[in-house]
Amino acid sequence: MENNKIGHHISEQFNRELEEIRNKVLTMGGLVERQINLATQAFSQSDIELAETVIQQDNHVNDLEVEIDRECIEIIALRQPTAFDLRLLISVIKTINELERVGDQAKRISQMTIHLSDGDNNDHYYELQHISEMVSAMLHDALDSFARMNIKEAANINQQIKSVNREYQSIVRQLITKMMENPTNISRSLDLLWAARALERIGDHACNISQHVIYLVNGEDVHHLSTEELNKKIEPKL
Amino acid sequence: MENNKIGHHISEQFNRELEEIRNKVLTMGGLVERQINLATQAFSQSDIELAETVIQQDNHVNDLEVEIDRECIEIIALRQPTAFDLRLLISVIKTINELERVGDQAKRISQMTIHLSDGDNNDHYYELQHISEMVSAMLHDALDSFARMNIKEAANINQQIKSVNREYQSIVRQLITKMMENPTNISRSLDLLWAARALERIGDHACNISQHVIYLVNGEDVHHLSTEELNKKIEPKL
Repeated sequence: MENNKIGHHISEQFNRELEEIRNKVLTMGGLVERQINLATQAFSQSDIELAETVIQQDNHVNDLEVEIDRECIEIIALRQPTAFDLRLLISVIKTINELERVGDQAKRISQMTIHLSDGDNNDHYYELQHISEMVSAMLHDALDSFARMNIKEAANINQQIKSVNREYQSIVRQLITKMMENPTNISRSLDLLWAARALERIGDHACNISQHVIYLVNGEDVHHLSTEELNKKIEPKL
Repeated sequence: MENNKIGHHISEQFNRELEEIRNKVLTMGGLVERQINLATQAFSQSDIELAETVIQQDNHVNDLEVEIDRECIEIIALRQPTAFDLRLLISVIKTINELERVGDQAKRISQMTIHLSDGDNNDHYYELQHISEMVSAMLHDALDSFARMNIKEAANINQQIKSVNREYQSIVRQLITKMMENPTNISRSLDLLWAARALERIGDHACNISQHVIYLVNGEDVHHLSTEELNKKIEPKL
């Protein structure tokens, strides 16, 4: 496994620093995954208390981003890394920024949960279950591809975004129909729509993370490539 | 002006490299500003041809991001900068990422323009004029604060986001009313809503850029601070 590269320095201290950074990213990733799961659970069950917990916990996500970002820059200044080590630190800086934005989406979904609860009834919302499962799995795989530095897994994640987009479009169509059938549904349907949009964007962030993994391992920026171009790029190295 | 710091190295070559990076960010910023202006013009005038031009030009924005990002990392590897120089390069990497996302929003607005034109009439849409002027000005000021490394200007931008949010909420309320009055308006109103959302997010990106400027000058991460905390942080240094 490629991540042995982290332990290749003569300086034991430097090895430890990089390993620690990597572990912190995974801790932050775990926290963000939990935030999404709790946010979607709160949403589907109209659980306001749980939604409030998610909103409060977003601070921890933000704090972790600031902490890891600062540590990466300190290591760059102090150790003057090049090649793989520098790519690792730059990828981490970018990856934690994506994770922080995923955390924001979890917060947004929770705000929708609270907003929806202002209505007359206590509906449960299962419309978003499928898309939330899809993007949770994508984020999980993206973090796994980071932990294992596995570009094949990373490239796979990029292929899943099309299904997420299709599911999202299907939700939008359903909600428009619902709104047209009964205009009193409009405000509530819009909240559902925002939550669906937040979930779709989590899928985008998972893709971005997987692209940072490919950059880390291959040294190539694949951010704006099509799926076909991406596959061609990574094929010889699989 | 603080940006004299860029020219302080004994190596003339290094000075030139940093100056070039700074200029490229401003070029990219100018291109992105132009993309928003064209996108909102196309939107308000239902100009499909112009909207298509914006979508095509998004590639240039993406290419510039990839190019500047690569150059920053090369300079870090080669020059092993510390302190201000390292903060400059890290801030640039983050700033161009925000600019690229602003470019995505301009593209999204253009897609809405094309989508709206599928309807029966050729309405012109002035509802978004005010919010688009607000966020265009914010982005312009954010780039200006970067060019001048002016943290006072940067801090001001953060205060403007509240007005943008208010304007956005007002647009949402108007559109909900419109949808309720006439359900055949729903699909078109949703497109307007997505465009308004895209503009609001451009305001967020402008804020983020201004926070990168404050980090660059002060060395402090102010990303998750409230307006009050932010003002306290930068006050002694103004």
